[in-house]
Amino acid sequence: MKAIVVKRGGDKPVVIDKPRPEPEPGEALVRTLRVGVDGTDHEVISGGHGGFPEGEDHLVLGHEAVGIVVDPNDTELEEGDIVVPTVRRPPQSGTNEYFEHHQPDMAPDGMYAERGIVGEHGFMSDFFTSPEEYLVRIPRSHAELGFLIEPISITEKALELAYASRSSFEWDPSSALVLGNGSLGLLTMAMLKSDDKAYERLYCLGRRDRPDPTIDIIEKLGGTYIDSRQTPVEDIPDEHEQMDFIYEATGFPKHAIQSVQALAPNGVGALLGVPSDWEFEVDAGAFHREMVLHNKALVGSVNSHVKHFESATVTFTKLPRWFLRDLVTGVYPLSDFEAAFDDDDTTIKTAIEFSSV
Amino acid sequence: MKAIVVKRGGDKPVVIDKPRPEPEPGEALVRTLRVGVDGTDHEVISGGHGGFPEGEDHLVLGHEAVGIVVDPNDTELEEGDIVVPTVRRPPQSGTNEYFEHHQPDMAPDGMYAERGIVGEHGFMSDFFTSPEEYLVRIPRSHAELGFLIEPISITEKALELAYASRSSFEWDPSSALVLGNGSLGLLTMAMLKSDDKAYERLYCLGRRDRPDPTIDIIEKLGGTYIDSRQTPVEDIPDEHEQMDFIYEATGFPKHAIQSVQALAPNGVGALLGVPSDWEFEVDAGAFHREMVLHNKALVGSVNSHVKHFESATVTFTKLPRWFLRDLVTGVYPLSDFEAAFDDDDTTIKTAIEFSSV
Repeated sequence: MKAIVVKRGGDKPVVIDKPRPEPEPGEALVRTLRVGVDGTDHEVISGGHGGFPEGEDHLVLGHEAVGIVVDPNDTELEEGDIVVPTVRRPPQSGTNEYFEHHQPDMAPDGMYAERGIVGEHGFMSDFFTSPEEYLVRIPRSHAELGFLIEPISITEKALELAYASRSSFEWDPSSALVLGNGSLGLLTMAMLKSDDKAYERLYCLGRRDRPDPTIDIIEKLGGTYIDSRQTPVEDIPDEHEQMDFIYEATGFPKHAIQSVQALAPNGVGALLGVPSDWEFEVDAGAFHREMVLHNKALVGSVNSHVKHFESATVTFTKLPRWFLRDLVTGVYPLSDFEAAFDDDDTTIKTAIEFSSV
Repeated sequence: MKAIVVKRGGDKPVVIDKPRPEPEPGEALVRTLRVGVDGTDHEVISGGHGGFPEGEDHLVLGHEAVGIVVDPNDTELEEGDIVVPTVRRPPQSGTNEYFEHHQPDMAPDGMYAERGIVGEHGFMSDFFTSPEEYLVRIPRSHAELGFLIEPISITEKALELAYASRSSFEWDPSSALVLGNGSLGLLTMAMLKSDDKAYERLYCLGRRDRPDPTIDIIEKLGGTYIDSRQTPVEDIPDEHEQMDFIYEATGFPKHAIQSVQALAPNGVGALLGVPSDWEFEVDAGAFHREMVLHNKALVGSVNSHVKHFESATVTFTKLPRWFLRDLVTGVYPLSDFEAAFDDDDTTIKTAIEFSSV
């Protein structure tokens, strides 16, 4: 079968031939439909992330997949089930309490592998196998865009953690700000639009000039676009308002600190972007004091697990069809896979199609 | 009646004569038993906090009180009830949604007065009045040390917020670190000792030399004393371990940032100390990244309200008698009230006695 991989020492994705995997007991064999591409894939390719499976000279890319079960192999799954695989798997050293408690998304470094990212092959191949417990069934109607379930699940978990932090009092947020107008930021904007919190005002920060398809989506969702070059996060309360909820999806390291000043009293900031080390001067006294005097919270969130994929499946049905159409700017066949890794101002979200239902 | 006040332009507490207050409808008249002294009182006295009641040339001090109802004045209270007053009251401008929703502890600046701190007289007087809804009944057996209910309630709220932030997953903490060995830090150490989370290892950071009564208490509670001059917060993981829970009660502004590095994966830091502005260089990238990759949380917490006073009353009964004896280093009569405001290395917690049951 064909697989898109990055080789040791390589710096771009290439297609290779690999043997079709055989499911072990408890595993199903899945024919891959589509696999999404995101920023993490670019980091893996450039070597800034990840690690190769032990003893292998390549890593199969891809962690945002949807597929169809072709061999249930004595699992509870059935042939023809549409499934989305989760990403974290037990590490080489074997399982541990995080997997036993069904929350590998809470496992620290070294206590997990991540398919397509670190230590285990991903899903960009004609077929993949997976233990049944890491395959989430989704409706057949979701098959085409099922590769969005994984990124949606990332926000499901972040919202779960952030909202939990405000659950001990009556919190009635009305404004939310998403930092970052990439595909995850835009998905989150659409999710907040139909969120139970019923936000009245949504904002999304980016640094693009009009005309721009992401700004169009933000405005079509009823949100306000904020250009960070004109209005950095610290100026947002003066230019717009303080925000009850902030979702950080850029990894720009000033955002964690600045968000606290931009939050309304009792607000919460969810941090998802992953910055590199960067030292600079901050008024850490004001940051600390503002956290205390206005009961603010900051919550970091990474990865997601089965329950978040399940709620993502429900959320998916609430997202407007026009939004999904506008978000996915390209689905490419394997013969044109390089196009899915191109990133220009017209690209929002891409996927590679391996087969169809 | 006598009252301990700070006058406009004054910089020390003085005793004055004031008329005994008359309860308005819905208010009870309370004879003051004892009122505790804490760091906020010192800030109020030095003018670094607070504000005088409108039209008054003085502020009656004190917000950690216990008293006995002498005139229920048609409320549901009864003569002889032992009560602890809460601190936040509607501002001059009138009530607002935070008071209507019974969570004035979540009100932002300007939407509350604080008795003895900002805008309303405190409780350091022979009698005080209060609306019934802000008087929490406590058992008669708690009367003597009932002035500790307010500071305990501060930690009740902080724990409630911090634990809520970890409530969406299975969190099983075993280590906790309290930053600060003042009376609030020590009360929190004792509370964590009997906490439902069943911490196996407790640590408390201070900067005192042995022999020292606070270090004695920390060790008698089974905790480990950490001298911040030898082991600053950032070195604690190497010298001791990463902490599942950190409680910041010093207001030292480096602690908010450093705590994130000292937290274990999935850990939470509760911030209670109130620092001034202070700019310095931090690796905000590492701070942000560590929050994300290990699902960490920071939660600010200020003040407390009725439900926290009620749970504090339950918590109080669980604290060892020896601990309470050792914590309260002086209860002074009005004639010797200045001694309650002295602060040397033998002082932990003091109170002023206005009357007895």
